[in-house]
Amino acid sequence: MQILPILDTPAEVVPGGSPSGPIVLSTRIRLARNLRDFPFPGWAKEAQRREIFTRCIEAANATTQMKKAYVLDLTALDDLEKQVLVERHLISRELSSASPGAGVVVSRDHGMAVMINEEDHLRLQVMRPGFQFKRVWKLADALDNSLEEKLDLAFSPELGYLTACPTNLGTGLRASVMMHLPGLVLASQMEQAIRAVNQLGLAVRGWYGEGSEASGSIFQISNQQTLGESEEDIIKRVTSVLQTIVEQEQNARAKLLEGDSVKLLDKIGRAYGTVRNAHLLTSVEAMNCLSLLRLAADLTLLPDTERPRLDRLFIESQPGHVQLAAKGLMEGQKRDLARARFLREQLSALPPLNFDRAFEKN
Amino acid sequence: MQILPILDTPAEVVPGGSPSGPIVLSTRIRLARNLRDFPFPGWAKEAQRREIFTRCIEAANATTQMKKAYVLDLTALDDLEKQVLVERHLISRELSSASPGAGVVVSRDHGMAVMINEEDHLRLQVMRPGFQFKRVWKLADALDNSLEEKLDLAFSPELGYLTACPTNLGTGLRASVMMHLPGLVLASQMEQAIRAVNQLGLAVRGWYGEGSEASGSIFQISNQQTLGESEEDIIKRVTSVLQTIVEQEQNARAKLLEGDSVKLLDKIGRAYGTVRNAHLLTSVEAMNCLSLLRLAADLTLLPDTERPRLDRLFIESQPGHVQLAAKGLMEGQKRDLARARFLREQLSALPPLNFDRAFEKN
Repeated sequence: MQILPILDTPAEVVPGGSPSGPIVLSTRIRLARNLRDFPFPGWAKEAQRREIFTRCIEAANATTQMKKAYVLDLTALDDLEKQVLVERHLISRELSSASPGAGVVVSRDHGMAVMINEEDHLRLQVMRPGFQFKRVWKLADALDNSLEEKLDLAFSPELGYLTACPTNLGTGLRASVMMHLPGLVLASQMEQAIRAVNQLGLAVRGWYGEGSEASGSIFQISNQQTLGESEEDIIKRVTSVLQTIVEQEQNARAKLLEGDSVKLLDKIGRAYGTVRNAHLLTSVEAMNCLSLLRLAADLTLLPDTERPRLDRLFIESQPGHVQLAAKGLMEGQKRDLARARFLREQLSALPPLNFDRAFEKN
Repeated sequence: MQILPILDTPAEVVPGGSPSGPIVLSTRIRLARNLRDFPFPGWAKEAQRREIFTRCIEAANATTQMKKAYVLDLTALDDLEKQVLVERHLISRELSSASPGAGVVVSRDHGMAVMINEEDHLRLQVMRPGFQFKRVWKLADALDNSLEEKLDLAFSPELGYLTACPTNLGTGLRASVMMHLPGLVLASQMEQAIRAVNQLGLAVRGWYGEGSEASGSIFQISNQQTLGESEEDIIKRVTSVLQTIVEQEQNARAKLLEGDSVKLLDKIGRAYGTVRNAHLLTSVEAMNCLSLLRLAADLTLLPDTERPRLDRLFIESQPGHVQLAAKGLMEGQKRDLARARFLREQLSALPPLNFDRAFEKN
């Protein structure tokens, strides 16, 4: 397996070392860029796509950010390898089904990636755990500048960066945060929250982007507009909405604990019992159980130190990772069996839930 | 509480000391008898019912079987006390709602009871754990003879014992076995089995008799006819049907283990996780979980020695017992909370499920 070196590290919900926050899992910025002298990937001929691939790889390799980076030609990967990369958020689903010339350069720490010949010639992304737009924007901007020194990018002084889809025109920037919102989901307030966020011009998506289900109460919130606003203003707007949602989530959790806290503790207890004892677990059920255990850590029912492990298991419970661990493709029920066994093993040393502490708080 | 002495002993799924069997929980025989000189309880005046009560209590007290027995006047008990007696199968639901003159004499070991002024003047019952009709019939017959020495019973040489309802006329005998049939339930073969049993002239009921739900996969199988057959023939017929059902249950279990055993182990694992971690448990869910753990003991996933404890918990998880333990009446959710806490405590030392052994068998 060509990509084994990159997958030889444990899955992190977000690369970058430091732990994720209780509500904000991660911050991500992606920039869409295109080369001036080539048609967009969807219109380019195969030879052109290959030429784009070569130029972009060379440019990325020459940056200091991508020193010792992993360089992957997507056409050389099998379906399972691509799926695992998608599950780690290192490539998009779209790239994984792309034609010749599709590739990705991933930084040594997995925190930066440059996708080549996705919808645009270049999609730069920088991810960091928790909430840190300032740092992520600084890193993304620096990576963008490094690449721009080496590549002639399609830029119009009037419109900004030109992109294959007009929704990315201008800054080409999407600022997003991955949030864990079990309180709003359990209180049945998530739909309302989504409507409010949409009205403010932001999009709410599931864990794996557009069209994906929001299992595990994980939601991605990002700007929809890229034109007519500066990068800083976009980030400011996303940040302000994010802060409102964090408050709403905190309120929802407080109300759940004040009100019928027993129902919440029952749900958490059952999730704990299920991941430790079930023999068949779908990825959706696994994520929902892990989500409740993550909430348990936030509520001090589990030690804080368990959160990174739970974050890792969110990813390692995905179908691709389960098959990767078993070193081969597996049908649905066999996957559910392997996933349940894996989670039982991984969580066998989980300390008992400390319900006294939760009640003390009230 | 007048009945405290009788409830001061742990609840047994069946009184009598020795443990219940893996499939047949218990054997029971009840005899309906009436005094010659009095109208049936439903037609008797209050004074007559009281007279019947006095005569029957005196007669029962004078038998050797009922030495040091518990004598209870039902009108002196509150609703909770009566409910607890019903849950222990010491009195029927019908007796618990009966008018003045209703009473019960329960032997020291709880294995024999004489209900007074239920549908008939006298309802004798003898219960023993596991499958032992011979012994139970011998005991019931002896108790019947002892009472008959002291009471003038309504008997017709042509029809046999006269009873309030014609369905009990003749022998007045109902021979029943309580069976745990999770295999047939899980394999969705229970409806079919019930139809077959009905066609053989036997009735299938839930744990608490007529009209009760069959939660926990526990079923009571008994004869419907009491006339035109000798006691021995009735018992023979019930025994023969019972043996067929035991075989069917064994086959169903074997098939579940041979076929998709993982689904079975998953169900058992989840039940284990639920009773040990839930914070709200209805009695139906509790019984269904305990049923799966009882099956786990049969399949050697749990030590055999756990079965008596599980059998006791079946009863102690009932609404009356949960309220008795809390020393007061409680609303639904409070009961579910108390039940869940009780089961978590009771099962905290349950050893882990030994799944390896189950797989070894295959």
